[in-house]
Amino acid sequence: MPHHKIHPTAIISPECVLGRNVEVGPFTRIHANVTIGHNSIIDSNCEIGYPATSIAGKKRLVIGPNALVRSHSIFYEGSEFGPGLKTGHRVTVRECTKAGRDFQIGTLSDIQGHCEIGDFVRFHSNVHIGQYSVIKNCVWIFPYVILTNDPHPPSCIMMGVTVEDYAAIATMSVILPGVTIGEGALVGAHSSVADNVRPNTVVTGAPAKFLCETSKIKLRNGSGHSAYPWREHFHRGYPQELVSRWLDELKT
Amino acid sequence: MPHHKIHPTAIISPECVLGRNVEVGPFTRIHANVTIGHNSIIDSNCEIGYPATSIAGKKRLVIGPNALVRSHSIFYEGSEFGPGLKTGHRVTVRECTKAGRDFQIGTLSDIQGHCEIGDFVRFHSNVHIGQYSVIKNCVWIFPYVILTNDPHPPSCIMMGVTVEDYAAIATMSVILPGVTIGEGALVGAHSSVADNVRPNTVVTGAPAKFLCETSKIKLRNGSGHSAYPWREHFHRGYPQELVSRWLDELKT
Amino acid sequence: MPHHKIHPTAIISPECVLGRNVEVGPFTRIHANVTIGHNSIIDSNCEIGYPATSIAGKKRLVIGPNALVRSHSIFYEGSEFGPGLKTGHRVTVRECTKAGRDFQIGTLSDIQGHCEIGDFVRFHSNVHIGQYSVIKNCVWIFPYVILTNDPHPPSCIMMGVTVEDYAAIATMSVILPGVTIGEGALVGAHSSVADNVRPNTVVTGAPAKFLCETSKIKLRNGSGHSAYPWREHFHRGYPQELVSRWLDELKT
Repeated sequence: MPHHKIHPTAIISPECVLGRNVEVGPFTRIHANVTIGHNSIIDSNCEIGYPATSIAGKKRLVIGPNALVRSHSIFYEGSEFGPGLKTGHRVTVRECTKAGRDFQIGTLSDIQGHCEIGDFVRFHSNVHIGQYSVIKNCVWIFPYVILTNDPHPPSCIMMGVTVEDYAAIATMSVILPGVTIGEGALVGAHSSVADNVRPNTVVTGAPAKFLCETSKIKLRNGSGHSAYPWREHFHRGYPQELVSRWLDELKT
Repeated sequence: MPHHKIHPTAIISPECVLGRNVEVGPFTRIHANVTIGHNSIIDSNCEIGYPATSIAGKKRLVIGPNALVRSHSIFYEGSEFGPGLKTGHRVTVRECTKAGRDFQIGTLSDIQGHCEIGDFVRFHSNVHIGQYSVIKNCVWIFPYVILTNDPHPPSCIMMGVTVEDYAAIATMSVILPGVTIGEGALVGAHSSVADNVRPNTVVTGAPAKFLCETSKIKLRNGSGHSAYPWREHFHRGYPQELVSRWLDELKT
Repeated sequence: MPHHKIHPTAIISPECVLGRNVEVGPFTRIHANVTIGHNSIIDSNCEIGYPATSIAGKKRLVIGPNALVRSHSIFYEGSEFGPGLKTGHRVTVRECTKAGRDFQIGTLSDIQGHCEIGDFVRFHSNVHIGQYSVIKNCVWIFPYVILTNDPHPPSCIMMGVTVEDYAAIATMSVILPGVTIGEGALVGAHSSVADNVRPNTVVTGAPAKFLCETSKIKLRNGSGHSAYPWREHFHRGYPQELVSRWLDELKT
């Protein structure tokens, strides 16, 4: 395996598969049931391919090329990530989750497994994603947000949350089991959402109520422009071809 | 010490006492003032027996047999756990806590110490248990729940929370200082509880108010059965003799 | 470098600068762009001087003398701390933050960087401090509090929160972008604060409303004394000369 930069203290199973130019930091352990794509970086003190607790999870962990997994993160076996995965520190991701390209997961976030996640999704720090959540493309989830799944805890009935494209859920909000957050919707900070949220609307409060259309929220920069849809003005870190497509779509 | 499976990178104090068949993962440190029971597993990157900051905490950390402490967890000296302790990752448990058998602590949870915890208690991820909390048997605490203790922070007056048998506290709720959550009660998600909660009742909101008897909540599976008491239908991971006892009690 | 007590497994860049009697625990990594003051302790499994992601952050990390950084903590390069820094476990501090003396940061807390923090500030466990927060002297922030900064997420407009001297923010509260919490004010638990809070007043609820003057809150010890200003009765861990100054000021 030439071109690897593996720190001598890292513990790498001989059965895992590392792509070209993969870097692995000190005190990190990579288990057997793992494939990591070309040009990826796994920082120090990580644990990659931790044994799953369910039989369904006993599949290979596949991390696509160009990943950056920051230090102290833990990934279970049995999940799959497209190219460009990028994490903060101390992330936990359990088995049976499938995510698309350019997925970002903030420091301390915890994905409980059995989730479907689209392309260009961004989780900020310390979000908690319950099992059976479905998150579409270009969604934003902010710190201390929880997606729940059990309507009467504890029970064996799991009703995952669905979050549609471009929706944003602001900090410290709870989305209750089975709720769908519509395309382009905004959940205000510190809300508790029991009912479906219509596309391009803002809900706030506990229990969350309709506040206004998202288009009514003005950018706080004196321009008079709307703050939503956010993809009109916020492009940091997205690939140019995606931004061009967004702007073309919004013109029509 | 035969039958141990200690990773060569682990740092084990010669003064600690490890039972038969104890496994210790890489990059883990076990301090002197520690006893770990037979057949226990301490994963990688843990720190077990971290020196307590109070004089009262300068006692031996005792972890009962058949424990599983997942990676990156930190236990202080001066606490005591019955058999069957099971943790997620990155758990923190401080000094002077005493817990019974089959205690489960989810990823990122933080027990601040000086707590009493019964048998078969389950904390999900990221709960915060303030000092002087008293938690009885078979209690469930869900993610981002906080048990507080200081009625006018910051002060030196500590009024711990009490949670009675079979109670469940749903996600992102705060229990205010000195409150008692009654036997079999349910605190709804995102609640702030300032007053005692009567047994077998549901409270919700901030401030939390009485919603209904728990028996009024129906299982969301079309059966028409009540979701509470939950021990009627939810038995995952509990020993068979406990479940039999529950079912016998509920018949009468 | 005599008098250092560096664990043999620690990885110390030859370019970092360690003061006299600095201790470094096992499995810890100290990067090049770091200066640590005399008599400081860096526990196990830490990462100190992690490369900043912004160009502005490419400055030296300076940790003053007599620091105690507990295990599993991560500090980025480009921040600066006065003497007496003390952290819990698994703290994350990003670049371009400047804090004064005797700063305490609880377990799991996350400082996002670009913050100004005064002297004798105390964060309890699991607080989340957004970029561009300004926190004056002797402030208290309790578990699961979030200081936000983006008025319409996601956007590039950052309106940091300001917290004035002696203010206290109780557990699970969100402070919305651009808000100022006045000197000596108290934010009750589980509040969502959208408007500035006047000095020496209590606000509670979501949205938070004025409840009373802080002086109306009585200590729950039967003394009949007010619980605020807290510096009248709560002195644990503060230097004697500061406490004397407080008491002199409060007499007049």
